[in-house]
Amino acid sequence: MIDKNGLASHLEVVRRESPLVQNITNYVAMNNSANALLALGASPVMAHWTAEMEEMVAIAGALVINIGTLDAEWIEGMLAAGRAAHRRGTPIVLDPVGAGATSHRTRTAWEIIEQCHPTVIRGNGSEIMALVNADVKSKGVDSTASSDDALEAAKALAVRTGAVVVISGPTDYITDGTRTETITNGHPIMTSVTGMGCTASAVVGAFVATGEDALLSATHAMAVMGVAGERAQKVAGGSGSMQVAFLDELYNLTGEALKNEVRQ
Amino acid sequence: MIDKNGLASHLEVVRRESPLVQNITNYVAMNNSANALLALGASPVMAHWTAEMEEMVAIAGALVINIGTLDAEWIEGMLAAGRAAHRRGTPIVLDPVGAGATSHRTRTAWEIIEQCHPTVIRGNGSEIMALVNADVKSKGVDSTASSDDALEAAKALAVRTGAVVVISGPTDYITDGTRTETITNGHPIMTSVTGMGCTASAVVGAFVATGEDALLSATHAMAVMGVAGERAQKVAGGSGSMQVAFLDELYNLTGEALKNEVRQ
Amino acid sequence: MIDKNGLASHLEVVRRESPLVQNITNYVAMNNSANALLALGASPVMAHWTAEMEEMVAIAGALVINIGTLDAEWIEGMLAAGRAAHRRGTPIVLDPVGAGATSHRTRTAWEIIEQCHPTVIRGNGSEIMALVNADVKSKGVDSTASSDDALEAAKALAVRTGAVVVISGPTDYITDGTRTETITNGHPIMTSVTGMGCTASAVVGAFVATGEDALLSATHAMAVMGVAGERAQKVAGGSGSMQVAFLDELYNLTGEALKNEVRQ
Repeated sequence: MIDKNGLASHLEVVRRESPLVQNITNYVAMNNSANALLALGASPVMAHWTAEMEEMVAIAGALVINIGTLDAEWIEGMLAAGRAAHRRGTPIVLDPVGAGATSHRTRTAWEIIEQCHPTVIRGNGSEIMALVNADVKSKGVDSTASSDDALEAAKALAVRTGAVVVISGPTDYITDGTRTETITNGHPIMTSVTGMGCTASAVVGAFVATGEDALLSATHAMAVMGVAGERAQKVAGGSGSMQVAFLDELYNLTGEALKNEVRQ
Repeated sequence: MIDKNGLASHLEVVRRESPLVQNITNYVAMNNSANALLALGASPVMAHWTAEMEEMVAIAGALVINIGTLDAEWIEGMLAAGRAAHRRGTPIVLDPVGAGATSHRTRTAWEIIEQCHPTVIRGNGSEIMALVNADVKSKGVDSTASSDDALEAAKALAVRTGAVVVISGPTDYITDGTRTETITNGHPIMTSVTGMGCTASAVVGAFVATGEDALLSATHAMAVMGVAGERAQKVAGGSGSMQVAFLDELYNLTGEALKNEVRQ
Repeated sequence: MIDKNGLASHLEVVRRESPLVQNITNYVAMNNSANALLALGASPVMAHWTAEMEEMVAIAGALVINIGTLDAEWIEGMLAAGRAAHRRGTPIVLDPVGAGATSHRTRTAWEIIEQCHPTVIRGNGSEIMALVNADVKSKGVDSTASSDDALEAAKALAVRTGAVVVISGPTDYITDGTRTETITNGHPIMTSVTGMGCTASAVVGAFVATGEDALLSATHAMAVMGVAGERAQKVAGGSGSMQVAFLDELYNLTGEALKNEVRQ
């Protein structure tokens, strides 16, 4: 169980410090992720050119690497950015989108893990399981595993990599292999909005940039996602207005509301 | 004239089977297309890396190739994916965005047609005419031809390529060169929302992935687009809320509503 | 001070002539920019492939170059398009996103200026200052300078390049080094919507494509942005609905409203 006052005050810290979050993310979710970071009060940068990664990472409070729309050139940029961030001690969030869907994705995720040592790895159940067991096939980028099934895999991945591992699902699990936190907020309609998982990874970026403890920071971020998602669902008339309402709720979210509505 | 019960039940099949639709599409419309497929209950993947096309196509129910933001590297990915899909018998939808605007686009569209043998080609009137008659110049990516003018070109293209050809417009035409279906739903404000045509191609992908007959499946998809568009226009206050309302209507669309509101 | 009737009638000209605006812009803002141009009645094209730049620019009324998500291949496309536009006398708008954040961006912006001779350069205060004084560091893509501080830099840049320079901010400044116009419309929430600056550059593209005087055209565009933004803020409940409402207001904006609400 996390401290609710600590959660509320971490949101205020993000809004006050406005951390620069550098994202190398997929084409589909760039707009959503940038808007979510702005709604939160953070400062997003989306840049991928290998040549400028060293300089860009130098001014960033966190780096988010998302392998959603992968190709060889972008992998180069991801590795350059990730190595620079690791060298500087800048926290890294890895989103292994579609791990298990193709062997190239699983392999690329592991290349990033081994060369860049991410602070947090966030995925859905299938993706996390595929990273641990290469025989798990996921169906594209959507999860076919329940997050409960994947918790054991998450713990194993955390132990093996030293990263905090986050599984998004009806229950979110956040684990370092020993300690495990849960967040049970959110709503199924969130899976009908593209890039919601990618947005979660970006939000984790803003929280690890401004927090001491990665497990706690990632839990705070998932609480924010879940509470904003639940509030948005209450006013949304479908998946289109859900995407819009989610940003509005993120923009208007107070520490007080977060504290009152989070469920663990 | 299509059977309205068949139309209604095809929508239910898409929602139930949730086909994986692999898209190589343009940067502008990726978010819209993914959201439309999710709203429909389908499962979108956006991937373009040549190295993983073979594996990605192997798990897909349909492949959508859209040449909107073209370059040499992406063409390679498109051809690799298209050849893999053709070899496996996976249906392919080609959206020849901007054919006629530059000679490179017309040529690329033909390269894809000849190497990949698309099941369906969907474009606006100008684009379809430009594919048949290289002398037709289109103004960028927007159509300057009425869809009526283009019907003859569509029939010729269908006969020449073996594909079902779809022209979007005030009246949508869906033809295999012999049989021609029409859908007259929709609203002009749809042309003020970017990526609406690209979204139509993605939706066609979900329907050909789950239908036996390509002409019928493409007609069902255009009916869904038109009915959802009309319903959205009734609640939208401009082109911004139109984009959002369209996704909501797609998300909430029932077979019953579709059956009652389709016009041919 | 600009003539308000001239402003109102320029909006009508954009709607009537529907200029083709060719954009080489970043992945984050492509959808927003295309939708804003459509809402305005203009005709957007997003294309970046070096091979087709000559042909694409030949049919365009203006070219917008935005360096937001830069890499080596895209720079090639930008320079090819920009040189073709300059040769043809087609107006060019340059948006030097993140100039000052990395030395590669500052250098690339200058390469484009020197090879393509933009008609208008539009950025935030930090970006414009970084172009004039390489020692200015900006924090990512968000401005840390007040636009007032940057006005002197804008004038110097205008004199040095021959371009009209636009600084977006609480007060927008539009200067050719001698004459300076201001627009004081807009609302701070606009900075919480990603790509709003990029959208401004695209809108400037539509106005320079249809106007004689670049200073006047850029001022008209900034007036449209500011008035639509203010109207949108009145109905928006947060940054998500702000993005949507802004497009609706742009779509519904009349010359009459523009004339009555612009503030200089």
